[in-house]
Amino acid sequence: MEQRLSLVTLGVHDLARARAFYEQGLGWRRGNTEDEVAFYQLPGLVLALWDRAELAADAGVPEGPGGFGGIALAYNTRSRDEVVEVLARARDAGGTVTKPATDTEWGGFSGYFTDPEGQLWEVAFNPFWSVDETGHTALGAADQD
Amino acid sequence: MEQRLSLVTLGVHDLARARAFYEQGLGWRRGNTEDEVAFYQLPGLVLALWDRAELAADAGVPEGPGGFGGIALAYNTRSRDEVVEVLARARDAGGTVTKPATDTEWGGFSGYFTDPEGQLWEVAFNPFWSVDETGHTALGAADQD
Repeated sequence: MEQRLSLVTLGVHDLARARAFYEQGLGWRRGNTEDEVAFYQLPGLVLALWDRAELAADAGVPEGPGGFGGIALAYNTRSRDEVVEVLARARDAGGTVTKPATDTEWGGFSGYFTDPEGQLWEVAFNPFWSVDETGHTALGAADQD
Repeated sequence: MEQRLSLVTLGVHDLARARAFYEQGLGWRRGNTEDEVAFYQLPGLVLALWDRAELAADAGVPEGPGGFGGIALAYNTRSRDEVVEVLARARDAGGTVTKPATDTEWGGFSGYFTDPEGQLWEVAFNPFWSVDETGHTALGAADQD
């Protein structure tokens, strides 16, 4: 199994609300036209929004009570100020800031929000990792030359 | 907020067991040396394994009871046969196949497994999307020229 990831599917209770958050709220554009699912092309992979009960049934797992599922997605910014800006935008779009931007013990600056479905995103400035112009994130700081 | 994803963190109860699954079991190689966290460089983003309670505390959310968290990660294969092979490898590595490989109503072929922490992965052959030689997945079939 190669070391890669193709798709992250967020199972949602309310697809219209979730789409409004990512599209009107955060400014993302979806890459498909079907009504029952939304696909967003990200650099290197796809993010999907799909009905939560259908996802659980498709996977053969019980749907469960919700709450923290043990996963956080993260968006690394290109500057410290951008962390504050992205958290504010997520809040204005209907998300909930669960942790305001704070200096971290590992030397970065980060906060967290949940989307309207409760899925957790960290927003972080990490000076030890790089985000290139195409949006790819890599371990290790950018080359200085 | 640009349309991108930097990091997926899986919060784990047992880091050694989770590392053994991804490293010895699936053959992934980690990109850091710290004991308390494991980072895997994927094409375009990073996957991390970190203590689940610490992740919840860091994010300011209650840890919760576990179970299905409403997210599925997916690995798209380059062939139909590879779906069966990857599911078998995940099972041999200590994962649980929650749905064997099956023809899907959307015209693909897929199954699901959970890793030892219960995180859900779909393994899918999707002839309508492409996986390039660097491991990037894109909406739409590969160019034919």
